[in-house]
Amino acid sequence: MAVEIERKFLVCSQLWRADVFDEIPMRQGYFESAPGATVRVRIEGERAVLTIKGPTVGLSRAEFEYEIPMADAREMLDTFCQGRQVEKVRYLVKHGEHTWEVDVFEGANAGLVMAEVELDRDDEAVATPEWIGEEVSHDRRYRNGYLARHPWAER
Amino acid sequence: MAVEIERKFLVCSQLWRADVFDEIPMRQGYFESAPGATVRVRIEGERAVLTIKGPTVGLSRAEFEYEIPMADAREMLDTFCQGRQVEKVRYLVKHGEHTWEVDVFEGANAGLVMAEVELDRDDEAVATPEWIGEEVSHDRRYRNGYLARHPWAER
Repeated sequence: MAVEIERKFLVCSQLWRADVFDEIPMRQGYFESAPGATVRVRIEGERAVLTIKGPTVGLSRAEFEYEIPMADAREMLDTFCQGRQVEKVRYLVKHGEHTWEVDVFEGANAGLVMAEVELDRDDEAVATPEWIGEEVSHDRRYRNGYLARHPWAER
Repeated sequence: MAVEIERKFLVCSQLWRADVFDEIPMRQGYFESAPGATVRVRIEGERAVLTIKGPTVGLSRAEFEYEIPMADAREMLDTFCQGRQVEKVRYLVKHGEHTWEVDVFEGANAGLVMAEVELDRDDEAVATPEWIGEEVSHDRRYRNGYLARHPWAER
């Protein structure tokens, strides 16, 4: 992490052009209010990742993931994401062709257990194990981002 | 970029525990509504970066920056940041001890020219060049994130 200290001014003439020594075109965008897009920082075991997810279309969602230093992830969680966090243990479970991810939530979401399976196609057939309950793929209340702000314990 | 396709279910018994082959503790947080925190994707010349900035305290702001693939940056800007973008050309200008960044805005912010200088300390003395106008360090309307949503042309 860097700390940026800067002062900012309006410019009132063209005189600065005489001392230019470099020129960089820039284009930049902001996520805060992007509808359906989420930015997540996650510590998973020994690894830390920053993930940008796009809006969900059907069962699909564009996802960009970047590994980041663990110290950065800890600092972001502690300073920027207070009150918007999820803690859970993910168990990987083999069933037939598929690997299921079973998330056992902790803290304010303790009591909630969810299973996810990743598919190659939207219409791929899945043999659901006998321990599977109601499908909540399209229920946004079961999104982790939602659970981070509206914990299970408060429902 | 990856596309994630998944189905999600509630779990209704403990039977899955028999087939667990891995276990990963996780902690994750979300930025969307973090007060004062911004997430920015920027193409600067030939380079693309993802930047997380914390809330401003005085003149300081914690900043985490990660270089990302150019194709990812283009796709994020085109798909997630429509209507929340800033385009500008940054000129680097030498004046005395300091390098000034002069940003000449384009598109919906055309007409706005701003200069920034980065400091090592909050109270560092700066010799302001003669082309410098009003200081706007503490005016949030001149933040790029604000300009992305409330362009200069619409004021």
